[in-house]
Amino acid sequence: MSASVRFTKGHGTRNDFVLLDDREGTRPLTASAAAAIADRRAGIGGDGVIRVAPTASAAEEEVRALADEAAWFMDYRNADGSIAEMCGNGVRVFATYLRREGLEAHESFDVATRGGLKQVRFEGENVAVDLGPWRYEDPETGADGIDALVHLPGHEPFSALRINMGNPHTVAALPPSIRLADLDLSQAPLVNPTPAAGTNVEFVHIVGPGHIEMRVHERGVGETESCGTGIGAAAVATHLWAGDLDGDQPWIVDVPGGRLRVRLLPDGHVELTGPAVLVADGTLDLS
Amino acid sequence: MSASVRFTKGHGTRNDFVLLDDREGTRPLTASAAAAIADRRAGIGGDGVIRVAPTASAAEEEVRALADEAAWFMDYRNADGSIAEMCGNGVRVFATYLRREGLEAHESFDVATRGGLKQVRFEGENVAVDLGPWRYEDPETGADGIDALVHLPGHEPFSALRINMGNPHTVAALPPSIRLADLDLSQAPLVNPTPAAGTNVEFVHIVGPGHIEMRVHERGVGETESCGTGIGAAAVATHLWAGDLDGDQPWIVDVPGGRLRVRLLPDGHVELTGPAVLVADGTLDLS
Repeated sequence: MSASVRFTKGHGTRNDFVLLDDREGTRPLTASAAAAIADRRAGIGGDGVIRVAPTASAAEEEVRALADEAAWFMDYRNADGSIAEMCGNGVRVFATYLRREGLEAHESFDVATRGGLKQVRFEGENVAVDLGPWRYEDPETGADGIDALVHLPGHEPFSALRINMGNPHTVAALPPSIRLADLDLSQAPLVNPTPAAGTNVEFVHIVGPGHIEMRVHERGVGETESCGTGIGAAAVATHLWAGDLDGDQPWIVDVPGGRLRVRLLPDGHVELTGPAVLVADGTLDLS
Repeated sequence: MSASVRFTKGHGTRNDFVLLDDREGTRPLTASAAAAIADRRAGIGGDGVIRVAPTASAAEEEVRALADEAAWFMDYRNADGSIAEMCGNGVRVFATYLRREGLEAHESFDVATRGGLKQVRFEGENVAVDLGPWRYEDPETGADGIDALVHLPGHEPFSALRINMGNPHTVAALPPSIRLADLDLSQAPLVNPTPAAGTNVEFVHIVGPGHIEMRVHERGVGETESCGTGIGAAAVATHLWAGDLDGDQPWIVDVPGGRLRVRLLPDGHVELTGPAVLVADGTLDLS
């Protein structure tokens, strides 16, 4: 294509996205166009590309069925152009764009994703999103609190718990003698039992009551500075290991890209709260 | 700063830059602002940031002295905000911007850099730039054609020649039995004799007469997809090894980021020719 495309760039804890405004729902995004836009050198660059489209215009019938509850559809693609269901950091940036453009006027609203409806809510500078329910990857072994081992070269195996947040996570607890910063995550950690479809792996250091810091190795990607569902899974696992917090107090989770908060809701849902920043607006020429 | 900044993003063989138009010469760039703009996640992202400014407005007296010969100054900073003298791919993108904006109307003109005047010339879709003269790093040993060894784990040492293009290069010749694609350049190659200030290292495979392909490990950066002076140095070294080409024929140099041409001029200067693309224009909010 040789068209000129309007774009907005944004990020949530350094997980970054290119937003394309298709509020008429007339310009579906191809995989190759998304990959060209996400190219960090010959395009704009981002971890993903998000098309803003009316829910009623979605190609997928399951998405169109959400049109009564959510006006806008987050049409999300990964940087390689492949389709993804949801992105916990991306949806906060998406919601912030909808509000800035006046497409949503309320403090709280639902958005449509391929992973279903997601409720977002503004809290001052931050945006909260309901990531949905967590579950044990295997309820029988998970109830013990530890049901996996994570291997990194040069370290004793780390005890870990497998948590599913719509996608698979293995959360490893760091013994106090090991500094998070000293881990080498340049290679994918080995996980035992080996998950057939792979797993994201989170390494967690407990800072204090209700406060953890973590690093994450994303399945098929490598280490990233932030991973929304991984942050939720890490808070869930630490909650299971360390016990409940007082009342409604959220977990503070520090990742290399910034600080987020996680609330474990009474209905078993996980709510992620963090910043979302719109950095730049412009026009992109793709040839 | 919380200002809104107009920018243009461009690249030359996937070496990418953010251009800031300061045609009034009133908005000098700080190191921290340049680094924030070059940040690939929280900014726009690029290998460097180029401020377009009148030569007469430059802070440096040596640059201001070029104002009679070149109207425009390429105020170049690396992605970390540090000042750099020149960039062989960046200057082509800079010249393309000057022409698109009508700031230069001729097919050939000089631009001012901290490395002195650089002559640029448009050749259809491509831009040629005179990189200046090459020289042996050490004329006594260099005249033998081989004056260094480059070490990569798992390989016999590669014979190499040290060429200075304003910055230091060590060009290693690949034996036919080794494929360029099979080299692991994730670590800096060891060079013997060890250069005090470090060196860029180019690995060259001769494709045919006047045609090479290469990969480059840039000093302090790692492997990159293109390096203007490295491409020049590789053509010079291959010319010294393989003999002269017919008449005025340029060397074709393929790098991961694309194809360039190198002409070795009678006066000992090296001219680099390749594409330059302006990808996007927009407004950036830095807080």
